[in-house]
Amino acid sequence: MKPASRRTGRPRKDDDRAAARERLLDAAHELMCERSTIDVPLLEIALRAGLNVALVNYYFGSKDGMLLQMAMRHQSNYAAVLQRLLEADYPGAAKLGLHIRGMVRAFRRVPYLQRLQHKILRDSSEEEARQVAVALIQPLAEFYRQLVAQGVADGSLKPVDPMHLHITIVGACDMLYSGSASLAHGFGVYGVDDALSAAYSEHLVALVMQGIGREPPPA
Amino acid sequence: MKPASRRTGRPRKDDDRAAARERLLDAAHELMCERSTIDVPLLEIALRAGLNVALVNYYFGSKDGMLLQMAMRHQSNYAAVLQRLLEADYPGAAKLGLHIRGMVRAFRRVPYLQRLQHKILRDSSEEEARQVAVALIQPLAEFYRQLVAQGVADGSLKPVDPMHLHITIVGACDMLYSGSASLAHGFGVYGVDDALSAAYSEHLVALVMQGIGREPPPA
Repeated sequence: MKPASRRTGRPRKDDDRAAARERLLDAAHELMCERSTIDVPLLEIALRAGLNVALVNYYFGSKDGMLLQMAMRHQSNYAAVLQRLLEADYPGAAKLGLHIRGMVRAFRRVPYLQRLQHKILRDSSEEEARQVAVALIQPLAEFYRQLVAQGVADGSLKPVDPMHLHITIVGACDMLYSGSASLAHGFGVYGVDDALSAAYSEHLVALVMQGIGREPPPA
Repeated sequence: MKPASRRTGRPRKDDDRAAARERLLDAAHELMCERSTIDVPLLEIALRAGLNVALVNYYFGSKDGMLLQMAMRHQSNYAAVLQRLLEADYPGAAKLGLHIRGMVRAFRRVPYLQRLQHKILRDSSEEEARQVAVALIQPLAEFYRQLVAQGVADGSLKPVDPMHLHITIVGACDMLYSGSASLAHGFGVYGVDDALSAAYSEHLVALVMQGIGREPPPA
């Protein structure tokens, strides 16, 4: 039997609450993507959601609370996905290639995630920062440590500092979006579409694996 | 003969103005570096400089005007430096290595430069955005186009999309600073010192040139 709310067409209170929360998070997501910045006024988020701005405090406690939910909402199984890749039966180099492609796709879905995480870690309460660190930052750091160790042990990767590699790959993915103004003003490219994301993913895998240098041809 | 101001020990009006401008720019620079963010309130910048906040408008017209001067102040010969490297008598791959090392050093001096440029391009007036685009964004984009063309022509570089390479290198340099919270919470590294900057520079050159993949060893 369907719940009462569905039969009458009138949503129940709980559905209302959940729907309003989601509408605020969706509105914030849209505005951050459209404007290539996480600095979006609460008032405009509420306006886009068609809700009163006071509901942000009601549902999330504060703007920081809402930003935390934005950082966490798509990441419920983040650590588990990384762990599964570590446990898969491939050489380390193959796992790294899969990881890079997954990262480029993740930034295509949530282009501002890195900037949002850092804002929370820097500006939010200790408890909010701790949640992001435990759920998102530490699992990725640990993933890089184990992945490099596996790849060096199985001979598929050269030794590399896991933190250096982490900075390079995350930075290279993030800049495709946080550097959108450079793409526009420097290269006449306005926004990232599926084709650019896919081409960039292949570029990054090839660069990390083989590099772009080659010996000069024989004279 | 020294100017009157130096002889009497009392700075002239022009010196006062120049000194106050510099103090504001220096204070903003310090705060942006200390806090790993470009979101620093004007009032705190003025406080750090020991000057009245109204002077920001007096000297720079607006906060945006001050940010523009911050982006431009160390970049007076930026395009000329890039052009000189393009005209040097090295293979393209060697020039790319020098460029990467120079970029890592540039971010060590001005860790927030990339974020500041993008803020100006996104939020400031058309004229301020145009100045940053012409002085900083377009010369770097053109540098990548010509450098890759040179390296492919002389056989020292594999073909690569100059924009992809630009995104990767700038992103990899920027993340060392904009990702400082990841370094702290994920790797226990608090701040970038000379040793980390130098090691990261060598990592990035090696990664871009040779990659980190290698054939599995013979069984």
